[in-house]
Amino acid sequence: MPGTSDRKRGSLRVSEGSPRARYAGVRSATEALSRPLTAEDCGVQSMPDASPTKWHLAHTSWFFETFVLRPEIPGYRPFHPQFGYLFNSYYESVGDRHARPQRGVLSRPTLDEVYSYRAHVDAAMTAYLDGAAAVPALVELGLQHEQQHQELILTDIKHAFWCNALRPAYREPGAMATPPAPPLSWMAFPAGIRAVGADGSGFAYDNELPRHRVFVEPFELASRLVTNAEYLAFIADSGYRRPELWLSEGWETVRAMDWRAPLYWEQRGDEWQVMTLHGMRAIDGAEPVCHVSYYEADAYARWAGARLPSEFEWEVAAAAEPITGNFVESGRLHPAAASNGRGLSQLFGDAWEWTASAYAPYPGYRTPAGAVGEYNGKFMCNQLVLRGGSCVTPQSHIRASYRNFFPASARWQFSGIRLARSVLSPGS
Amino acid sequence: MPGTSDRKRGSLRVSEGSPRARYAGVRSATEALSRPLTAEDCGVQSMPDASPTKWHLAHTSWFFETFVLRPEIPGYRPFHPQFGYLFNSYYESVGDRHARPQRGVLSRPTLDEVYSYRAHVDAAMTAYLDGAAAVPALVELGLQHEQQHQELILTDIKHAFWCNALRPAYREPGAMATPPAPPLSWMAFPAGIRAVGADGSGFAYDNELPRHRVFVEPFELASRLVTNAEYLAFIADSGYRRPELWLSEGWETVRAMDWRAPLYWEQRGDEWQVMTLHGMRAIDGAEPVCHVSYYEADAYARWAGARLPSEFEWEVAAAAEPITGNFVESGRLHPAAASNGRGLSQLFGDAWEWTASAYAPYPGYRTPAGAVGEYNGKFMCNQLVLRGGSCVTPQSHIRASYRNFFPASARWQFSGIRLARSVLSPGS
Amino acid sequence: MPGTSDRKRGSLRVSEGSPRARYAGVRSATEALSRPLTAEDCGVQSMPDASPTKWHLAHTSWFFETFVLRPEIPGYRPFHPQFGYLFNSYYESVGDRHARPQRGVLSRPTLDEVYSYRAHVDAAMTAYLDGAAAVPALVELGLQHEQQHQELILTDIKHAFWCNALRPAYREPGAMATPPAPPLSWMAFPAGIRAVGADGSGFAYDNELPRHRVFVEPFELASRLVTNAEYLAFIADSGYRRPELWLSEGWETVRAMDWRAPLYWEQRGDEWQVMTLHGMRAIDGAEPVCHVSYYEADAYARWAGARLPSEFEWEVAAAAEPITGNFVESGRLHPAAASNGRGLSQLFGDAWEWTASAYAPYPGYRTPAGAVGEYNGKFMCNQLVLRGGSCVTPQSHIRASYRNFFPASARWQFSGIRLARSVLSPGS
Amino acid sequence: MPGTSDRKRGSLRVSEGSPRARYAGVRSATEALSRPLTAEDCGVQSMPDASPTKWHLAHTSWFFETFVLRPEIPGYRPFHPQFGYLFNSYYESVGDRHARPQRGVLSRPTLDEVYSYRAHVDAAMTAYLDGAAAVPALVELGLQHEQQHQELILTDIKHAFWCNALRPAYREPGAMATPPAPPLSWMAFPAGIRAVGADGSGFAYDNELPRHRVFVEPFELASRLVTNAEYLAFIADSGYRRPELWLSEGWETVRAMDWRAPLYWEQRGDEWQVMTLHGMRAIDGAEPVCHVSYYEADAYARWAGARLPSEFEWEVAAAAEPITGNFVESGRLHPAAASNGRGLSQLFGDAWEWTASAYAPYPGYRTPAGAVGEYNGKFMCNQLVLRGGSCVTPQSHIRASYRNFFPASARWQFSGIRLARSVLSPGS
Repeated sequence: MPGTSDRKRGSLRVSEGSPRARYAGVRSATEALSRPLTAEDCGVQSMPDASPTKWHLAHTSWFFETFVLRPEIPGYRPFHPQFGYLFNSYYESVGDRHARPQRGVLSRPTLDEVYSYRAHVDAAMTAYLDGAAAVPALVELGLQHEQQHQELILTDIKHAFWCNALRPAYREPGAMATPPAPPLSWMAFPAGIRAVGADGSGFAYDNELPRHRVFVEPFELASRLVTNAEYLAFIADSGYRRPELWLSEGWETVRAMDWRAPLYWEQRGDEWQVMTLHGMRAIDGAEPVCHVSYYEADAYARWAGARLPSEFEWEVAAAAEPITGNFVESGRLHPAAASNGRGLSQLFGDAWEWTASAYAPYPGYRTPAGAVGEYNGKFMCNQLVLRGGSCVTPQSHIRASYRNFFPASARWQFSGIRLARSVLSPGS
Repeated sequence: MPGTSDRKRGSLRVSEGSPRARYAGVRSATEALSRPLTAEDCGVQSMPDASPTKWHLAHTSWFFETFVLRPEIPGYRPFHPQFGYLFNSYYESVGDRHARPQRGVLSRPTLDEVYSYRAHVDAAMTAYLDGAAAVPALVELGLQHEQQHQELILTDIKHAFWCNALRPAYREPGAMATPPAPPLSWMAFPAGIRAVGADGSGFAYDNELPRHRVFVEPFELASRLVTNAEYLAFIADSGYRRPELWLSEGWETVRAMDWRAPLYWEQRGDEWQVMTLHGMRAIDGAEPVCHVSYYEADAYARWAGARLPSEFEWEVAAAAEPITGNFVESGRLHPAAASNGRGLSQLFGDAWEWTASAYAPYPGYRTPAGAVGEYNGKFMCNQLVLRGGSCVTPQSHIRASYRNFFPASARWQFSGIRLARSVLSPGS
Repeated sequence: MPGTSDRKRGSLRVSEGSPRARYAGVRSATEALSRPLTAEDCGVQSMPDASPTKWHLAHTSWFFETFVLRPEIPGYRPFHPQFGYLFNSYYESVGDRHARPQRGVLSRPTLDEVYSYRAHVDAAMTAYLDGAAAVPALVELGLQHEQQHQELILTDIKHAFWCNALRPAYREPGAMATPPAPPLSWMAFPAGIRAVGADGSGFAYDNELPRHRVFVEPFELASRLVTNAEYLAFIADSGYRRPELWLSEGWETVRAMDWRAPLYWEQRGDEWQVMTLHGMRAIDGAEPVCHVSYYEADAYARWAGARLPSEFEWEVAAAAEPITGNFVESGRLHPAAASNGRGLSQLFGDAWEWTASAYAPYPGYRTPAGAVGEYNGKFMCNQLVLRGGSCVTPQSHIRASYRNFFPASARWQFSGIRLARSVLSPGS
Repeated sequence: MPGTSDRKRGSLRVSEGSPRARYAGVRSATEALSRPLTAEDCGVQSMPDASPTKWHLAHTSWFFETFVLRPEIPGYRPFHPQFGYLFNSYYESVGDRHARPQRGVLSRPTLDEVYSYRAHVDAAMTAYLDGAAAVPALVELGLQHEQQHQELILTDIKHAFWCNALRPAYREPGAMATPPAPPLSWMAFPAGIRAVGADGSGFAYDNELPRHRVFVEPFELASRLVTNAEYLAFIADSGYRRPELWLSEGWETVRAMDWRAPLYWEQRGDEWQVMTLHGMRAIDGAEPVCHVSYYEADAYARWAGARLPSEFEWEVAAAAEPITGNFVESGRLHPAAASNGRGLSQLFGDAWEWTASAYAPYPGYRTPAGAVGEYNGKFMCNQLVLRGGSCVTPQSHIRASYRNFFPASARWQFSGIRLARSVLSPGS
């Protein structure tokens, strides 16, 4: 058991145990993530898309309180009458809520009070789960939800620290270096009908269902993500100044925002540096490029004579892959996984991979009844699906059918690029 | 033969003839559309999405001048050295251009000068086409492009007139009434691999290619569009006030814009009225509801216990359908087409039908070389596909593989709703 | 005397006559201004601050209809029931109105219909004034109001034409050249109590009243406006890049708008050119600099070691000055007035002169009863007073007590710079 | 005398002592104000106009470091190389700076580090002042500056707490009640030349200079501020729904912001409550109305048949008045001062009083040399002068010639209303 230096992953090893142990593991993993931060750090919201750590800590508790404890436990006493208002994220059917862009204003409750809130919820949840044979569905949803927020805690604090000229480090770096990137190769997949979507072997969000059939034309998928070194070649080839490489909206965004490189990159003299959770670093050419928008991923692919995969192509390729990740955000958040022996590796766990697929319901998709029906379905518009999982995604949260989604302009997520290309059918 | 009162369709009858005749027919149809308008009308731009009639007249000529005459005709003399700047719509590779939201500022060139511009281009084009055995590809593209702008002339002037409290009529109404809407029935389609995309039998835009295979799960499609009467029931059932019916972005839009009904609807006392090209009218319950956004179409479908079709479901259903239209925009822009004998009718020509499909490239899609490569491909982001065609779409411009596209919030297009629903497979 | 080619001034010569003649003179002068314009030109609105010529023509008629004919003439039949809505500018107490930024959408009524509207109003007004011994107060207000809009017609169409890459000329230029600018000298004024405000000898707006006493410390006023040549020296001395010269808001505006020169200036190669009512011209160093914001006037003054005068300093200096103007907007809108023999000349008629005085009510100021009380008083916030009058101001509309006012950022008015400086009292 | 519970005033008692003691007194008063707050509270920025307490604590130290220690102390070691960037407010000549709306992002430096920064600066300042016979001018400026930020700490935290549905109290309330408001009477002042501006008897900002003469027409000034009870009558008389009472900009703001009462007022059932530094309270009708914009002050005055005073009328009236204040922000920040025996009392210390005067330079005004020249002068545009001082203004910071200034829309300051009216001269 690796102890405090690997908090995020620590939770995962208890997931095989009892419902109580699983619950405790996920919850404590969240708190471990906040430990390197001061109470002041935990209160910062650097932009409307991001939330304070403290808000994540409270909202994940609110989720259990609202969707499990209040409906399930007779006489359950909510911790505070106004926390339902303060920590509701976007559930219209639950009621009004504090404005999202104003979450950084909430100096009260204090961080300590939020921990008391967590303890209050944990006590009730532990009693509720005591002796349960299995994790109830809504509890499992709450745990998966909390794992999403574990990733957001790191994603959001990275952005907050980047907005500060002091460029604080979330954690001091370790010593390992990223190994050289293997040569890029192409894995070929034949045409055919494939089944996609969750196969029922484990937890899945509603948006991964129902499993259904798609026809996939022949395609090839890159064996690894695009590296920083490759992306630097795109920049050097005037990639950010050539409109013919860009989607129309992407080009407008590049000009309006004056983008010249991925988020967190800075040119200092002749050197490109990058903000990481361990502070500023020189760019490592071997690492996957990260913190690019869909627009940039798409433009890079066009420049490279390729395209982005559809989410189904990705899932077809991923179906048999081991879940590993090699990229460690410039400082080893977790030990590098050993690469498997195949040419195609590391589909998971380095960076979220933009796909060309808009986030849309699967045929026959149904939202769950009640407020949790707002969890996923209502966002199925103007978002792109990302597949895989990043170096800050809890490993047990990664699966082949997982559908992450963000708007095309989002860059603060750990999002990277995997190329694909179509294979012409004979005679076409 | 309806004569001058049916200018828009008048052009189509020459389309079987020589290249020159086809060119002349499309061009004269455009001018016929501007004839009911004053020069002052032709200069108005009511919002950045819309353009003045005069601009449409000039831009369609610029298209031929830029993509056909300048590259193809040695010594061709452009009509005016600055028209390339004024009438370039969005082609980055052609050069700078007048700002789109400022098109209404261009009192010069005058409408008469724009007609001279058209005549100048027509003379050169006619000479170019003289004796041609077939319409060259770029000319055909220009003609299809012009047909799109024919529709936009009507779409945009309707919006401009609606912004004016005088509510002018584009044309005086005729006398026919819309027949009662037939009962809605559901057409069932089985699962299977289907070929979609242009089949090579006629002109197609690049975005309809390549023809490829998709797997379609079993589904049902409504036999007709949702009517005003049905949509009124949605409004009466508090459809615009129930967040659970809406996509998250849709709900935000409803609140921000204070939407309570489709665009152009107005409640006067107890009566709902609607702005049409023939002025204000009482709502006709039998007509298809029109001028709804994707958000509204999606919310209506959810309220009705159905969903919107994917563009492929739509195309599968449309493959064998005749091209007809019944809806005539409250005043008979063209005679009602006879309904065919099947249960499924009128897939074309009443209103553009929102599909649930994001506008994305087909597998193997390639943009054409050169500036015309910007025609379609660069807009494949954050738009939804609409299928079918509306009562203001030139009839020869309608085809089963056609992919129209607009952002989810767009309402000024003639866009309506056709419902679909998934059929559960046995045992699923 | 140039006759019809000098329409704007032509009206003034009848102002000594009967009320009917005075009314007819002002009204015909307005129409004369619109004569060089096409109907299309008359419909353009290039920005929310500006209005179409057609709107000016209609609104000035609405003024007489609303404030004179409807209340005064029993049985008066308004020309059109909705013109009250379309052509109300900002009178809350009169009712709702068409949105200001959307005035360019009004292709209807047509320009011809607006002329019919004017004729309808003129007929009723002429009957009303028939035999009147004097011009009634509200009619006089309407005529003064119309003279303001005469200036705005030229000011606004200049902006509209500048937004068009064709840079049309409102009128072909004449042949006279601006004489060299005389050397700048300083006129000294002693301290003392002075009376300011309208003295009752002629028409005055409510904002010029009541005449009251102010104490003026000793000051000096420049004998002429700052010239283009002088302003070019400010630009050459990095005037637009030195924050220490600017008000904080001014500096923010310079950066946000990327200002590098007055409005309408363009650098073509090594030459500065300027848009005028006669089209593009090379800058004439002898002319007064024009189309500068208050921010620029203030920054220039600071750079020159001086300041802008207060409106009272200006009025004290102006009290005894002849009303003349020399600047003719690069093309002789009216003949240059002969300079008088004093060192101080041309306080009037070249450009509106920014003062350092915020637009505020005089002590004891009262708004008139009724809707016309909204004419001036409600704008007394966040505007600066400009004094004098410009080359496009009707000469009879110019007077020493006149208070024009615009926000600090406004540049599309004919606004220039006159310097002042404080004189230290002995011993201070 | 209440001692530690009255920290803000506590500092003032040492102001008669040595320069060191005066410095220490002001500095410790600032820190006393932050003591009721958690580190989390101190980091919050609720809107771009407001700043975090921590930022105020640091910026006031930066002021001494930048304008005194760095230029005056050879070898002075700045505390941190990047604090000059982080804590520069708006001094362009000092260099770049952290964006104002992003001050809440700065979780680092921590509050403890900022206190270390203060201690570092204090040690150097104390050494610098050791043995000084008088407070050097720039030190005095720094102390006055720090007193302004003392007020802002309270003003800004009040806003932050109001943005939080928990409505925290900055401090628990005491027990005293506001005495009934005396009847409003009018004090008459004759016409005449008056001297205004700082008279040289103590510290003054540059904007209070030079002392100069103004002519004041006869006027009357209200003996006290408008009360909540009086303002409630304005609300009850539809004050917020009658455009004729408002400046044009004010009316637009009322509609755009949906204002219906002063900032911090909330209607709960039939009762109006108000947010105070002591939490939510019922409105006390006897207290001065506070947290109104200039627009509201002006509209109220018009409704009451009066007007706002000019800043010179106010100063003339204030010249002989004792400095007292009665209003204690719904909870006794300091003991009520005894009213003096005159009809006119309490010109100071209850609320800042909007005047009708735009913030402009006095005749002969000069900005100081160097960066401190940016302190006041560059803001002399589009702001209104407020006079007096509020219940959160340090008492030693209040003086008759003091010119506070804010934009017309500002409401988060402790700003109230005193009425004035003009007296008609005989025969006018």
